[in-house]
Formats: sequence, C-alpha cells, structure tokens
Amino acid sequence: MPAVNGYAVQDPASPLAPFNFERREPGALDVQIDIMYCGVCHSDIHQARNEWGGSIYPMVPGHEIIGRVTKVGAEVTAFKIGELAGVGCFVDSCRTCASCLANEEQYCDTGMVGTYNGREKDGSPTYGGYSTQIVVDEKYVLHVSEKLQIEGVAPLLCAGITTYSPLRHWNIGKGHKVAIVGLGGLGHMGVKFAASFGADVTVLSTSKTKEQDALNLGAHHFAVTTDAAKMKSLAGKFDFILSTISAQHDYNQYLNLLSLNGTMVVVGVPPQPSAVQAFSLIGKRRSIAGSLIGGIKETQEMLDYCAAHNIVSDVEVIKAADINKAYERMLKGDVRYRFVIDIASLR
Amino acid sequence: MPAVNGYAVQDPASPLAPFNFERREPGALDVQIDIMYCGVCHSDIHQARNEWGGSIYPMVPGHEIIGRVTKVGAEVTAFKIGELAGVGCFVDSCRTCASCLANEEQYCDTGMVGTYNGREKDGSPTYGGYSTQIVVDEKYVLHVSEKLQIEGVAPLLCAGITTYSPLRHWNIGKGHKVAIVGLGGLGHMGVKFAASFGADVTVLSTSKTKEQDALNLGAHHFAVTTDAAKMKSLAGKFDFILSTISAQHDYNQYLNLLSLNGTMVVVGVPPQPSAVQAFSLIGKRRSIAGSLIGGIKETQEMLDYCAAHNIVSDVEVIKAADINKAYERMLKGDVRYRFVIDIASLR
Repeated sequence: MPAVNGYAVQDPASPLAPFNFERREPGALDVQIDIMYCGVCHSDIHQARNEWGGSIYPMVPGHEIIGRVTKVGAEVTAFKIGELAGVGCFVDSCRTCASCLANEEQYCDTGMVGTYNGREKDGSPTYGGYSTQIVVDEKYVLHVSEKLQIEGVAPLLCAGITTYSPLRHWNIGKGHKVAIVGLGGLGHMGVKFAASFGADVTVLSTSKTKEQDALNLGAHHFAVTTDAAKMKSLAGKFDFILSTISAQHDYNQYLNLLSLNGTMVVVGVPPQPSAVQAFSLIGKRRSIAGSLIGGIKETQEMLDYCAAHNIVSDVEVIKAADINKAYERMLKGDVRYRFVIDIASLR
Repeated sequence: MPAVNGYAVQDPASPLAPFNFERREPGALDVQIDIMYCGVCHSDIHQARNEWGGSIYPMVPGHEIIGRVTKVGAEVTAFKIGELAGVGCFVDSCRTCASCLANEEQYCDTGMVGTYNGREKDGSPTYGGYSTQIVVDEKYVLHVSEKLQIEGVAPLLCAGITTYSPLRHWNIGKGHKVAIVGLGGLGHMGVKFAASFGADVTVLSTSKTKEQDALNLGAHHFAVTTDAAKMKSLAGKFDFILSTISAQHDYNQYLNLLSLNGTMVVVGVPPQPSAVQAFSLIGKRRSIAGSLIGGIKETQEMLDYCAAHNIVSDVEVIKAADINKAYERMLKGDVRYRFVIDIASLR
C-alpha cells in the first residue's frame, strides 16, 4: 500500500505533527493523486479541536485538494495519468437517495463521506489533504484547468463552492443588491462571485481595515457593522445577504437589512444557536436559509466558470511545518484570504 | 358625525367595556359600513394588553369586519349602498412605495394604517370592528359574496388571508407534503386552504384531542408534537411547514422535519425570539421565512376563492357583552375555531 507523509492531530488538545500512514491501492474506479496544494479551512480547526463533537483521531485535515493524477484504476474513464485533479469536502455518498440522484450529494440522506474525519463504507477512517497523496473514486474527483494559478484553485473546492452554490441557487445576478457579511476565506470568494455574476455588492465587516481589499476584490460598497448610523441607513436595502461568519452574531441585525422578499443565507455555523425575532421575518416576508458546499456536478461547473473568468482565491502559501502557526493566525483573522499548504514541503 | 356604539379597553389592565364614539362623515372616496360581524383575533388581545408595546388608548379592537354599505362618497365607484363589504387589518397605506405599488400594502415602507390601534394620516386614532359602524376609503374595502354564511367570512379577513397568502406565495399545491403547526384560528384555515390547493396535509398539534377535528377540516394526517418517536419519524418529510403558533416554541424541532429545500413559514409572533441552529438550515438547504397577512388585491382573490370553493371559518358567534369571557377562553385555547361578535348585540 502506498506510504504517505502527512500532518495529523492525535487528540483535541495537541498541535498538528508529522504523521505517516498508508492509503489503499487504487481500486478499479479509483484515481490516485499526488497532492500539490491543500487549502486550510476554518472547519479544519473546528474538527481538529473537536469543537463540533465526534472527531475521529488521528485526524489528517484538509479538503481543498489539488494535485496530479499518478495512477488510475482499470475501469476509470474520466481521468488520465498526468492530469490536474481536485478533491473537495467529500469522497463518497450513498449514490441512491434523492439528493445523490439529483447531483446534490452534499445533502445525502445517509450523510456524505467526509474527505477527512469521516469513514469509508468499509469503516476505515478517511484522511485529508494535509498529505502527499490521496486515492478517491473517480465520481468524486474534479477536473481542474491548467490555465489558472493552481495554489489559488485549491480553496475553490470548499470556500469557492460554498459561496458559488447559494448565489446560483438563489439566481443572483444583474439588478440584485447583495451584501456579503464577513471578509475571510469564504467572504472574499463570495465577493468575487457575486460581482462576477453582475450584482451590486456591499461588504459588511467588523474591520474598517478591510475596506480597500473589499473594493479591490470587486465589491462596490463597504460598511463597518459597528457603525450604527450606517447600518440603520442600510435597513431594507439588500435583496440577498450571504453571511459567511462563524462567530456568534445577531441574525436580526442583518435580517433587517433585507428588502421585501429578501433572503439571508448562512454558510457559517456559530457555536451557539442564534435568536431570530419573528417580526424580523414577517415584516417584509424575509427568509433565512442555509446552504452546504455543493454537489460534484455544481463544483465542476464552478471550477469551469472560474477557469473561463480567471477567478482564483487570494492565498498565502505556507510550508506544512507552519500549519500550527497558520491556525493561530486564522483565529485572529490574520490571513488574506486563505492559507494553502505547499505539499512539496512534505516530501 | 355618525355616533357609534363599541367596546373598548381604556388601558392595558382593564377589561373591554362599552364605549361610544364618533366616526368621520364619509369623504368623497369613503364607504360607510354598518358592521354585522367582527371576528376576534389573538392579536386583539396582544394589543389590548399592550403586549407588543405602543398601544393607543382607548382602543376599539377588531379587524375581521363584515357588514353592509350604508353610504358612499361622491367619487366612490367600486361599492354601492346595500352591498356586503369587508374590512381587514388595515385601512390605508402610503400608496406610493414599491410595496404599495405592487399591491402588497401590508409591507408598506412607511407602515400600513392599522384598522385599530393605528393613526390615520391626519393623526386621528383608528377604531376597529368591535363597533356598529366603520368608514373606510374604498381602496381598502373588500367585496364579499352573498353566497357564504357571513359570520364565517369575517375571520377570512385576517386568519384567512394570513394563511392563504404564504401558501400561494410558495406555490403550494398538488404533490406537496405540508404540515400545519397549531390548530387554532389560523391553523384551521391553513388546513382548509392547503387541502383545497391539493397538498397532502398533516396537522402538528400539542393536543391529541384535536385529531378528529383536524381530519374533519381536511387534514390527511395528524401528529402530537410531544410524541418524540412520531416526531422523529417525520424528520425530513415535509416540503412546507406553516407555523401558526404564537406561544414560545423551538423552531429547530420543526425545521428538522423539512426535506431538502423545504421552507417553514411563521405567521405567529412568539413573545421572545426563538433560537435557530445554523446546522438545522444548512443540513438540507432549508429556509425559515415570515409572512404578514396579504394585500388588498390578494385578499379579494382569497375571498373570491372562498366563495367559489365554499370555504368559511368555523366560528362560535358571541354577543359583544361576552367578549371578556371570550378572551379568557381564547387564552386557554378553548374555541373551535374563531369567536365572532354578532354586532347586532351592540345596537
């Protein structure tokens, strides 16, 4: 079985440390990928530290994976050795439920198999992209264009699709006034996509220092959420709000910025439930909804869209040995806008 | 000015008592209506007791009004003396904002003028339907068919449109699995409309004693919300949930009953905000939305639909002098399903 170098946590309290393990030999339908870059998602920290409960250790995080195909199973038809390939947040699903049949495997009735911190159908744990190699069924592998700067493509596999999917599902485009709440790994992709789709984009952030960045990323307006007068002036102004923040926050503050029939979609998961005042919803027939990454088909569509429109994530490339420092900086919001591990540093 | 007999509260703590006042002489565009029946809505209690704040006293509640036209202004074209007419929750709005222009006056940017506990544009207080007569601009008056039992039509003006409007807005009909939460004044109308539109309807109620009523009203299934095993078996089963309850309740318990892309619409306003767990929304791309009564155009459409399909509210007709007793019974849920005041008892 192929030997793999990686970084893992052994328990919720310990830092990430080098970890050697084996991957399965590629089966008939498997694609073996030498990983080149892996993005670092905030959910890696949540799961490494067992903040959502149920974590499986040792854990090799990482679900924003880009690499090259090094081997394919006998029955693989979609990938050839040498091609660029991507792996996102899941590597399998039941394939038979209504969600799977509708190409929405992320909503699989029996639960998708996470790229890490999950279990394959045979019960073996899945290990993610903080590692030199991965083996995945071809149905769950994405095609990646050679045109883009690939370290910037890695975060598209989670941060990209997480923001692309709701903007598409709610048909956001020209004529819509959109607010993106939070300018981090998810938020900066939300700005790029919403602007690319033709919407009028406002970034709402707690940090005034992000204003110039927001405009550079394609936003048309910027507001600091602690500026009560400014926030009051924005009441009822947005058709759609994409909230990307995982910190505890008051949903009502944002719901009141929606116009008649407006929708706020949350893609971040605050640690505690947030209170919703029924009047905030009823007063203008507003909605609050959630959205979870995207299916394989839509993720491919998103990657193709990015290749056609030259969209990548803004990244800071790090060595694997710097991952613990990177986690600390992420917790302080000190990254513009995604850390990506150069997996060559693991070889 | 026409002298009117009514029932009013003078402050949040006192019971309703007889109150005589004057209405304006009908202006050029006004319709004067002799009230025959007025429904008793739970929001009458909330406002009489100042539970939402800002109540104006003396207050004559009542916004489910049916009567006959007794006088029309010189420029009135839509109504003739002797016709049946209805008045719902509002009697004016700004008429110029986007919502008003879209026939959604209930979402008027500057606020609709409530039928009671509101202020006309000249600042004078509005008095509602617990009274012998009302004068309203013809644009805010509804046509009522002679075909239906009119005491059962009165509650359509609030309980009816409050449930009809969201079912229509979210295009509920054949092939949809719908849950109606709570079987009171609103809920029993929700069941009638959802069933009439062709949906498969389940009533979720805290009270097992309402099962037979639910089925008689047109529901296909019934579940007691305190039956944990039953509720678990309903997880992910509904496309649409209409929550009609104003008591404090856990939104997540109901959100988890929604299928992929399902929507829960709340039309009741619990006294405190309710906590929403982001995972409840994200896990199946669910939405929670609010809806507020309906515009004049849609209210007329609803009344016409009811006349065509022989739909009325199930009511218990009371004398005006029994109104305080009725409030007490409503607070105990002891009414099937709407009290309606016979205004003849006030003459």
